[in-house]
Amino acid sequence: MVGIIMGSSSDLPVMQDAIQVCKDFGVAYEVDIVSAHRTPVKMLDYAQNAQKRGIQVIIAGAGGAAHLPGMVASATILPVIGVPVKSSNSIDGWDSILSILQMPNGVPVATVALNASKNAGLLAMQIMALANGDLSAKLAAYKLDLVEKVEEMSQQTKSATK
Amino acid sequence: MVGIIMGSSSDLPVMQDAIQVCKDFGVAYEVDIVSAHRTPVKMLDYAQNAQKRGIQVIIAGAGGAAHLPGMVASATILPVIGVPVKSSNSIDGWDSILSILQMPNGVPVATVALNASKNAGLLAMQIMALANGDLSAKLAAYKLDLVEKVEEMSQQTKSATK
Amino acid sequence: MVGIIMGSSSDLPVMQDAIQVCKDFGVAYEVDIVSAHRTPVKMLDYAQNAQKRGIQVIIAGAGGAAHLPGMVASATILPVIGVPVKSSNSIDGWDSILSILQMPNGVPVATVALNASKNAGLLAMQIMALANGDLSAKLAAYKLDLVEKVEEMSQQTKSATK
Amino acid sequence: MVGIIMGSSSDLPVMQDAIQVCKDFGVAYEVDIVSAHRTPVKMLDYAQNAQKRGIQVIIAGAGGAAHLPGMVASATILPVIGVPVKSSNSIDGWDSILSILQMPNGVPVATVALNASKNAGLLAMQIMALANGDLSAKLAAYKLDLVEKVEEMSQQTKSATK
Amino acid sequence: MVGIIMGSSSDLPVMQDAIQVCKDFGVAYEVDIVSAHRTPVKMLDYAQNAQKRGIQVIIAGAGGAAHLPGMVASATILPVIGVPVKSSNSIDGWDSILSILQMPNGVPVATVALNASKNAGLLAMQIMALANGDLSAKLAAYKLDLVEKVEEMSQQTKSATK
Amino acid sequence: MVGIIMGSSSDLPVMQDAIQVCKDFGVAYEVDIVSAHRTPVKMLDYAQNAQKRGIQVIIAGAGGAAHLPGMVASATILPVIGVPVKSSNSIDGWDSILSILQMPNGVPVATVALNASKNAGLLAMQIMALANGDLSAKLAAYKLDLVEKVEEMSQQTKSATK
Amino acid sequence: MVGIIMGSSSDLPVMQDAIQVCKDFGVAYEVDIVSAHRTPVKMLDYAQNAQKRGIQVIIAGAGGAAHLPGMVASATILPVIGVPVKSSNSIDGWDSILSILQMPNGVPVATVALNASKNAGLLAMQIMALANGDLSAKLAAYKLDLVEKVEEMSQQTKSATK
Amino acid sequence: MVGIIMGSSSDLPVMQDAIQVCKDFGVAYEVDIVSAHRTPVKMLDYAQNAQKRGIQVIIAGAGGAAHLPGMVASATILPVIGVPVKSSNSIDGWDSILSILQMPNGVPVATVALNASKNAGLLAMQIMALANGDLSAKLAAYKLDLVEKVEEMSQQTKSATK
Repeated sequence: MVGIIMGSSSDLPVMQDAIQVCKDFGVAYEVDIVSAHRTPVKMLDYAQNAQKRGIQVIIAGAGGAAHLPGMVASATILPVIGVPVKSSNSIDGWDSILSILQMPNGVPVATVALNASKNAGLLAMQIMALANGDLSAKLAAYKLDLVEKVEEMSQQTKSATK
Repeated sequence: MVGIIMGSSSDLPVMQDAIQVCKDFGVAYEVDIVSAHRTPVKMLDYAQNAQKRGIQVIIAGAGGAAHLPGMVASATILPVIGVPVKSSNSIDGWDSILSILQMPNGVPVATVALNASKNAGLLAMQIMALANGDLSAKLAAYKLDLVEKVEEMSQQTKSATK
Repeated sequence: MVGIIMGSSSDLPVMQDAIQVCKDFGVAYEVDIVSAHRTPVKMLDYAQNAQKRGIQVIIAGAGGAAHLPGMVASATILPVIGVPVKSSNSIDGWDSILSILQMPNGVPVATVALNASKNAGLLAMQIMALANGDLSAKLAAYKLDLVEKVEEMSQQTKSATK
Repeated sequence: MVGIIMGSSSDLPVMQDAIQVCKDFGVAYEVDIVSAHRTPVKMLDYAQNAQKRGIQVIIAGAGGAAHLPGMVASATILPVIGVPVKSSNSIDGWDSILSILQMPNGVPVATVALNASKNAGLLAMQIMALANGDLSAKLAAYKLDLVEKVEEMSQQTKSATK
Repeated sequence: MVGIIMGSSSDLPVMQDAIQVCKDFGVAYEVDIVSAHRTPVKMLDYAQNAQKRGIQVIIAGAGGAAHLPGMVASATILPVIGVPVKSSNSIDGWDSILSILQMPNGVPVATVALNASKNAGLLAMQIMALANGDLSAKLAAYKLDLVEKVEEMSQQTKSATK
Repeated sequence: MVGIIMGSSSDLPVMQDAIQVCKDFGVAYEVDIVSAHRTPVKMLDYAQNAQKRGIQVIIAGAGGAAHLPGMVASATILPVIGVPVKSSNSIDGWDSILSILQMPNGVPVATVALNASKNAGLLAMQIMALANGDLSAKLAAYKLDLVEKVEEMSQQTKSATK
Repeated sequence: MVGIIMGSSSDLPVMQDAIQVCKDFGVAYEVDIVSAHRTPVKMLDYAQNAQKRGIQVIIAGAGGAAHLPGMVASATILPVIGVPVKSSNSIDGWDSILSILQMPNGVPVATVALNASKNAGLLAMQIMALANGDLSAKLAAYKLDLVEKVEEMSQQTKSATK
Repeated sequence: MVGIIMGSSSDLPVMQDAIQVCKDFGVAYEVDIVSAHRTPVKMLDYAQNAQKRGIQVIIAGAGGAAHLPGMVASATILPVIGVPVKSSNSIDGWDSILSILQMPNGVPVATVALNASKNAGLLAMQIMALANGDLSAKLAAYKLDLVEKVEEMSQQTKSATK
């Protein structure tokens, strides 16, 4: 199961893509609002119990001084994927990115691009596919689909620019 | 009492200035290593119990994805002063600054300049002086001393540049 | 009493949150326009007399080359909280932040996040609560309220993402 | 098996930490120099065949316009961990970070902090531990060790700052 | 012939200017969608065969972690002009610029300004003009036209500001 | 006389403030479009002859790779005031600022804030006032007016925030 | 007379170039340490009386949250030239630059490049030369000297690179 | 012939790589010091006459407010390759890069990475190879050599990390 958390429901529009990836790949997921700064006890509890509760990968989205991914990573050995969110109180996303990415040695967070919760979802699929041949096949098919979509764009663009 | 904490003993050289200010102003202090990422339980415990233990102001220094000041602030109503440390794993200090400064609404951290633990100490003195006339007098004297030191530099520079 | 100042009435929309916090916590406040660059004499006078006039904490908001918080701090021993304002003449807020944050040793400014006048207000409450048990209780209640609001968001989000 | 690659042997000093983590956790690894820009055919071949050859996680380090992690990710469904290297031709590491982090939707790279190959190694362990109870136990022990080391620092610092 | 490629048809509005320059100067061109990350095999194939197929200069536009120009340059000896595109997933264009500009020694990309596909087109004309006197004459005329247009603006502005 | 130039008529909306200052202070001015990149000969001619033609201060506005102020300064001993313009092709103004500000030793440009052509105009007045008592008096009056306007804002804000 | 001031004697090594320019051009100057943050009263007094005391141009150098140039400009109608100093407590000079450059409308500071006190001196000469034919001639000679020095470098470099 | 110019002989250590590339590929070159800011007349003359004098590609290196490449491009239709130099007066190279890269529409400069004069040389070779089969063959051989060198590093690294 993928645990998808975010610091506020205002991050949900960005985080929907991660949820959709789980749905598309048929992987169980669970969504919750967990705020490092407003609910530190819940946050620590979430991190400490995630593994026991059957979560395998955690996707955490946050903006500004984005401490959620790193703090969850501090209290679990599960892989934590961090999504820097360009929230309204963020300085063009730089604070979100640096707060999530620049973790000290010993406590990694797998950071993806600004607002890239879709890639967070796909990365979770790639991680879980290591022990799941079915998921692995779906990812291979997804890659072929990317090629096909580019090919369609290619045909259209060639026509449109002659 | 001032609680001075930092994420690693490698931050101590920067944080010594804050300790020295407490000594110079005759204010009790306590120093500890508290790592948000390596000891999240100790960190939360520290924050939750600081007030009961008689701490009035917390000074927290950290570098890189510097979550310590903000996380401590999440679990105490004491004023938390954050010192962004330009540690070896920091990107010119930008990550330290943004991780500490850009806290979301509801959980403030009083951020000072990069590596400016001296100012963190002085800010703690200014806060505690609100209910301490003696400290207030010392701060006034400190300000006069700043003026005097500039005056000395002024005399020397005037001579040196004629 | 909290002294809330800003360089121009164009900063008022951002600074309203600090005023509201004072109102919500039942703490006296006073608002004024004090420009470091256009009214340097008034600014110095304000800083030099704030303590005598009963002000305990000063909140100063400014944008661009934001000198107001630091200059007020130069002439008072009261804690000064600086709010970097992302004004129309600011470069994405970087100038406001760096002009307020990077004060030299000897003259601290407690800097909060870009446009975060709400946190400036809360930080003032936390400072004044050190000698005010009633305020301390209100801050504790405020923290509980934050937890509750996240819990509400949590319930709604869980439903919405099933 | 972990595949550890880098664009040049000049990246090896930074990437050694990832190798050491594999050694410490008793996980098989393989190291190679694969340059996206100088050996694009080898790079594509490496990515396309990694899974077949038994690699489960790829760690790729690169500096400057760091295309290696993203390009390898383009041709494999294995999780790819990117290590931005602050090489001599890098602009304070910003180019390395942004070139690795800001991957488009569809092709994620799990980015760690600048030069943080140790965290890349640990993240690989966390990923592989999902299907390896022994590794999982080692990671739990590693976390306890982090706590212990902070506690030692804590004791020393308390003594040194009294 | 000029080969104009981009990572997605969403880059086409920006890249149209390069196409228009080719049309205006009467130079043959060919447009295609080639994605480094979604179609790495097509990309490598494009680069390896461009010269044989009669392409003389390649213009490649991409945004975010913009690997297309550099990767194409890795597999051809033709001059490659890179256009950093400020796409929706770009951090104000900084990622696009640094990913294209900061190529390692041995594999140059001729980078132009953010979104400046017009200049990419003109640079291609300047390169091809070295062996094409007719094109050379058109470029000289183009330069005279720039002067004339400024002169027109000059007259209008003088009148408007009297 | 003040010479006001800019690289394109698209800079005129920003540069109008400088023109207005000249009008308000009753100082002669002259406006022209001079492009360093499109009309280098006119630019050099302008710079070399400005002094002879009676110009005393030059105000030059430009955006992006903003070479106009520095290039004009290269060929005149008149003070040149540079206005970085946040034009449409500028990266948030950083390119305009750095291209104008970071002149090498020997060739200064007096740089003002982004888009601050009003301040460029006022700086020109301050420079010319050194030999013009009337202008000096107007500047002193202007300063008093700034104080008065803040006082008006002060009164309104005090009422509005009670 | 040129008034040269700086916030601390630690800025003197950078500011020496401005002093030297005055000496080289035979223009009277006066040097002082004036700190906006430590001696705000002296600073305001300096600014208010500079004109009366015969100063014509003020050169002010400062680092970090560099308020000195802007604050002096707030209380004088003399042209103020600001030199951003890359002091030890500065973030690569960005804070110094933005604090000096980004002045609000109404109060200009003529900003020169980071550490470029030589250019500050030359700009002062250019300003004073408007009413001083002798100085004007010296500046013209200085420009010719620049050409000559490049010509010497040109000859040497041509030989060295054959 | 390749024309290699730079603003000062202090740029020569960086620019030597471009000279060496010309030597290695057996292409005629010419080196000169041409300063946009100190010798604007020489600069304009150089640009206007380069083509007549047999120059085919111009490589221009400059640091800080680096106007040389763009200004030369303003007065020639030859391709101009710009090398941003991280000179002592540069802000980590950002000013050099933006001043060269962000040219307005109509006047392109082919910008390479910071200090990457080697790539400038190679890009010149690639451009000239379009009409020179011999040069084309040398570039193809150079590419093969890159592959071989990586293969050597690969063997050494595999041994060293077993």
